[in-house]
Amino acid sequence: MPVSNTPPTEKFPEDGRRRVVFEGVAPEIEGGRYPVKRVIGEKVIVEADIFADGHDEISAWLLFRHQSEMQWRKTPMQFLLNDRWRAAFTVEELGIYHYSLAGRIEHFSTWKHDLDKKYQAGRFLEIERLIGVEFIQEAADRAGDKDALLLRKYAERIRDAKDDAQALAVAREEELAELMAIHHNPELVTHYERQLSVAVEPEKALFGAWYEFFPRSAPSGGKGHGTFRDCEQLLPEIARMGFDIIYLPPIHPIGLTHRKGKNNATIAREEDPGSPWAIGSPEGGHTETHPKLGTIEDFERLLAQARGYDIDVALDIAFQASPEHPFVRQHPDWFRWRPDGTVQYAENPPKKYEDIIPFDFESNDWKGLWRGLRDIFLYWIEKGVTIFRVDNPHTKSFGFWEWTIAEIRKDHPEVIFLSEAFTRPKVMFRLAKLGFSQSYTYFSWRNTKRELEQYLTELCTPPAREFFRPNFWPNTPDILPEILQYGGKPAFLIRHILASTLSASYGIYGPAFEMFVNQAIPGKEEYLDSEKYEIKNWDWDDPENMRDLIARINQIRRENPALQTTWNVNFCQTDNDNILCYTKISEDRENLLLIAVSLDPFNRQAGNIQIPLDILEIPAEQPFLLHNLLDDTRQICNTEWNRVELHPGDVPAIIYRVNRRLRREQDFDYFM
Amino acid sequence: MPVSNTPPTEKFPEDGRRRVVFEGVAPEIEGGRYPVKRVIGEKVIVEADIFADGHDEISAWLLFRHQSEMQWRKTPMQFLLNDRWRAAFTVEELGIYHYSLAGRIEHFSTWKHDLDKKYQAGRFLEIERLIGVEFIQEAADRAGDKDALLLRKYAERIRDAKDDAQALAVAREEELAELMAIHHNPELVTHYERQLSVAVEPEKALFGAWYEFFPRSAPSGGKGHGTFRDCEQLLPEIARMGFDIIYLPPIHPIGLTHRKGKNNATIAREEDPGSPWAIGSPEGGHTETHPKLGTIEDFERLLAQARGYDIDVALDIAFQASPEHPFVRQHPDWFRWRPDGTVQYAENPPKKYEDIIPFDFESNDWKGLWRGLRDIFLYWIEKGVTIFRVDNPHTKSFGFWEWTIAEIRKDHPEVIFLSEAFTRPKVMFRLAKLGFSQSYTYFSWRNTKRELEQYLTELCTPPAREFFRPNFWPNTPDILPEILQYGGKPAFLIRHILASTLSASYGIYGPAFEMFVNQAIPGKEEYLDSEKYEIKNWDWDDPENMRDLIARINQIRRENPALQTTWNVNFCQTDNDNILCYTKISEDRENLLLIAVSLDPFNRQAGNIQIPLDILEIPAEQPFLLHNLLDDTRQICNTEWNRVELHPGDVPAIIYRVNRRLRREQDFDYFM
Repeated sequence: MPVSNTPPTEKFPEDGRRRVVFEGVAPEIEGGRYPVKRVIGEKVIVEADIFADGHDEISAWLLFRHQSEMQWRKTPMQFLLNDRWRAAFTVEELGIYHYSLAGRIEHFSTWKHDLDKKYQAGRFLEIERLIGVEFIQEAADRAGDKDALLLRKYAERIRDAKDDAQALAVAREEELAELMAIHHNPELVTHYERQLSVAVEPEKALFGAWYEFFPRSAPSGGKGHGTFRDCEQLLPEIARMGFDIIYLPPIHPIGLTHRKGKNNATIAREEDPGSPWAIGSPEGGHTETHPKLGTIEDFERLLAQARGYDIDVALDIAFQASPEHPFVRQHPDWFRWRPDGTVQYAENPPKKYEDIIPFDFESNDWKGLWRGLRDIFLYWIEKGVTIFRVDNPHTKSFGFWEWTIAEIRKDHPEVIFLSEAFTRPKVMFRLAKLGFSQSYTYFSWRNTKRELEQYLTELCTPPAREFFRPNFWPNTPDILPEILQYGGKPAFLIRHILASTLSASYGIYGPAFEMFVNQAIPGKEEYLDSEKYEIKNWDWDDPENMRDLIARINQIRRENPALQTTWNVNFCQTDNDNILCYTKISEDRENLLLIAVSLDPFNRQAGNIQIPLDILEIPAEQPFLLHNLLDDTRQICNTEWNRVELHPGDVPAIIYRVNRRLRREQDFDYFM
Repeated sequence: MPVSNTPPTEKFPEDGRRRVVFEGVAPEIEGGRYPVKRVIGEKVIVEADIFADGHDEISAWLLFRHQSEMQWRKTPMQFLLNDRWRAAFTVEELGIYHYSLAGRIEHFSTWKHDLDKKYQAGRFLEIERLIGVEFIQEAADRAGDKDALLLRKYAERIRDAKDDAQALAVAREEELAELMAIHHNPELVTHYERQLSVAVEPEKALFGAWYEFFPRSAPSGGKGHGTFRDCEQLLPEIARMGFDIIYLPPIHPIGLTHRKGKNNATIAREEDPGSPWAIGSPEGGHTETHPKLGTIEDFERLLAQARGYDIDVALDIAFQASPEHPFVRQHPDWFRWRPDGTVQYAENPPKKYEDIIPFDFESNDWKGLWRGLRDIFLYWIEKGVTIFRVDNPHTKSFGFWEWTIAEIRKDHPEVIFLSEAFTRPKVMFRLAKLGFSQSYTYFSWRNTKRELEQYLTELCTPPAREFFRPNFWPNTPDILPEILQYGGKPAFLIRHILASTLSASYGIYGPAFEMFVNQAIPGKEEYLDSEKYEIKNWDWDDPENMRDLIARINQIRRENPALQTTWNVNFCQTDNDNILCYTKISEDRENLLLIAVSLDPFNRQAGNIQIPLDILEIPAEQPFLLHNLLDDTRQICNTEWNRVELHPGDVPAIIYRVNRRLRREQDFDYFM
């Protein structure tokens, strides 16, 4: 055997005796670069390929801890198939959880099972028994007092057993297995090399009904400009409709320079109130309120009143300025300046948006800018706001958002950020990965069965499912989708039912939505006479509205846990492409919903839907009850395919609750 | 504006002004934990999602360098679609290449294109021109002497242009674009946070024909035990068959204790030579040769002779010992010992393999063991061996292999390791990831069209394609697949043609294979009277063999670059499931092969195959020539579907070379 010529410069691993390996860990986003997302009470199901060389048995466990905990908690992983293992934990506190994996060779179990096989084969086990005795004695050496005594006793009993059968019986004792597991050799445990993270947010980050309205359009009793006090008057009706979150467009002073007039006219009239998104005037910027809406104290009072109805108030954070915004004077280096000494306005050449000035994220004072913008959030958090709808986050740098959201969550893990990024898919996903709780989506433009099934499947499947929470909006002040323009009232019903039952988070821009407003600028998806540029006098007493249906559906959402999560949708076969059908099943499998929605606002649609008896766990031929929660009718079925008829003149949808536990003959004993 | 209450403990990124981001980089195995694999001359095509906030134009480039280079080389990435970018580089040296990505905002191009749009819209550009002038002056400040002068000249020309049209023309000059690209602000460049790696191996790691034989069965002229010298006599015929690698089962002294007899009998007769895998006797271990084969010098002579035929000799490295292996005395701590003082033999309870002693990879002297085993490779490398077939690597620890292969490649990047891991898929893939050049595969048991198509697709698609190189073996001394047992001579032809045309690396265990040996132990895939346990007297002059066909196919492989890579298989439609049809196309698209193989060894199979004209880039209706390289016949076609007939009595396959450049009327001008 020759001596090696290579100098001893080898880099060895920490302990080469550790033989278990980990691969394909899921969830794991971009190699652990980003946390996965959960809300309180949700599970994190962790899977991995875990194996070792050779044929020894192994065991593996999932390690997890809240960021505030020093000690890892452990749960054993279960073997699935093809070297895949699984375990889960439930997150119970806001903030960050960490998780990782560990595994080891189970020498003692391997020995025990081999001993059994050898015994069955009639082999003489004297020496084999002593091998097990050695394992037990090594464990005893590692164990403290009491367990060491117990283990040594087992070692003696196996060594001194009168025959192999007796030795085997002792080896199989449960207490011995437990002691051996506790006192395994920790030096030989392999740890997965990455620590992964879960960002845990409040339940409202997943489940909530949003109602957006312009506070200046609140009924003002003839004043012409609604106030925060006027908004208080709307709370009972908004609460009756069942919304949990009201979201207000920006409430700050509005610039005068280049103010936009009615229908986005470039020249405003004297009486035009301007777009709330043109933030800042000599009266203040992002931390002041518009004088006509009221004072900060008035806003805080509205917050308190809303809280009395279990309603949160979400603010719109739009990081841009009007030319008069105080920042322009205070922090000229946060903006780009033109050679003529004016500040650079927003543009999309050849179009100019001279009422809006973007921040310069390549400013040399980028740290000052980041701190300044973060502090706007902190200001409103201090006033009691915990939900922010962020305007156009995709036009501010990604690094800024990742830093800001992390900064805020250090002290305020309860804060929810909704990303208003109607942009390219990779950009929307990136914003979600780096911290936004929720995002607007392409739902607004997905109308056909195929589009809806594909999109929901993408959103509910890893990787998106791990970091991207959709919030479905049938309309917004910026978007009046074509289907609402041409589909009339039935289209509003259809889109509302789809949004509120496909996604646990949804929202509407009202009262335009529930009052079926559908006049657009021709050829566009912009509202004609958009509320963005003028104050509306909505007639809240007009009976032509869908508030009762909204209230009914929000009540159904509250009463049915299956609608309180987004990830459990399962599409069913139908023989009519104008009928979308899906189940939603609660995690405990007690709450089963079967939903059918017509996608056609014009015509009666009839067809057969396939009830997935296997998924609902209903044995073939067993009758089950379908209870339509929308009209409170009931029917008993026992077939897989069932006919439905949906009428645009009526509510063009069915929300069945499935009761699979009908009383049957064999049940009577229990009742009689 | 309130002052923030949070203390200034924020963790900022290095430079928050860098706005380009990278995601979804491919290839990237387990977040960059493992290198991807290439052989010299292959391309690495790198893709990533690359984007920034907002609407500014960006550029991106791929950085790469060989480990021996200090400077990164650069190549620009091309935008594909949906924020995806791509670039490629070709690896030209053995060892490790690193690659990463960089990107930046293209302020100057953005300005130039916006200027153009504004000009088209009839806007007055005086101020806009000055913005560009500022960009150019900043670049001039960064540039040294000559370029600074050039840039300042451009700035003047844009500023002083007589009108906007002239300014725009200057702004568009190519030289200016180049200068601006060279002198961009390096502070604002974003680098992808990971450096990824490519392990580059010799071409034989991808393309090679292996011939395995037992040297002790080489015709020995009546001596009863072949020698290395006898093996030399076989080289001309092995070279004529076209093999590049001969692979010898272990050539070391064989243990006597518990030696296995004929057909794996537990008691050997005096004359039984034992299994070559029971390595070690008082005559030596892994670095000695079996005395009856010859000396180390004889072996080196065989190596030199083989090299004269462009043939490499691959050795079998089996890390296990017979009870008499010198290691057992020299390094007792490398083995496990039983309580009765004997060394622990291999077992799969209740079966015992007392002739084989495994190493203990949980030895406290694991570093000594790892060094000792590595040194066995280094010993043979010093003798001139650069290809190793590693026996059962999956029963040695993964950490050991990763360390050993990296250690060896530090000085010997030319070494090729073939993993003989017939085991679970995740385990086989893991061994590939951590460094094995090639692996045996499940090909030996994939016989139907569906199985073959699925398996090849899996192997040729990321992620497997990036790290797992298959080596297809129709038989081995351990495996006589059922199809060869029952399918007779046509099955041998079919399996050989599939192996040698589906995979650039393939091998056979001969002469058993080419002489159609198909007698198995009943109910098993083990050879009856296996050569593992006895010396065979092969009649190399027996005309009942397929050596001419093997020679023909290896010649076709050498003449057709399309067969020299594995990743370019594309399956074609056929209307007969007993006919497998596929194209192989060289990277330069000059060498087009269309291959059809019958999967039925018993019956004539006829059917239609669909020639993928789009993939072959043949316009509809254009005639093309099909040249069957197996029988040198030719036919002209101009249809998509073509009939083939394959006979088990003949060669049940066709290997067409497609010539799509037939001389046509319009070509005559060039020739006349």
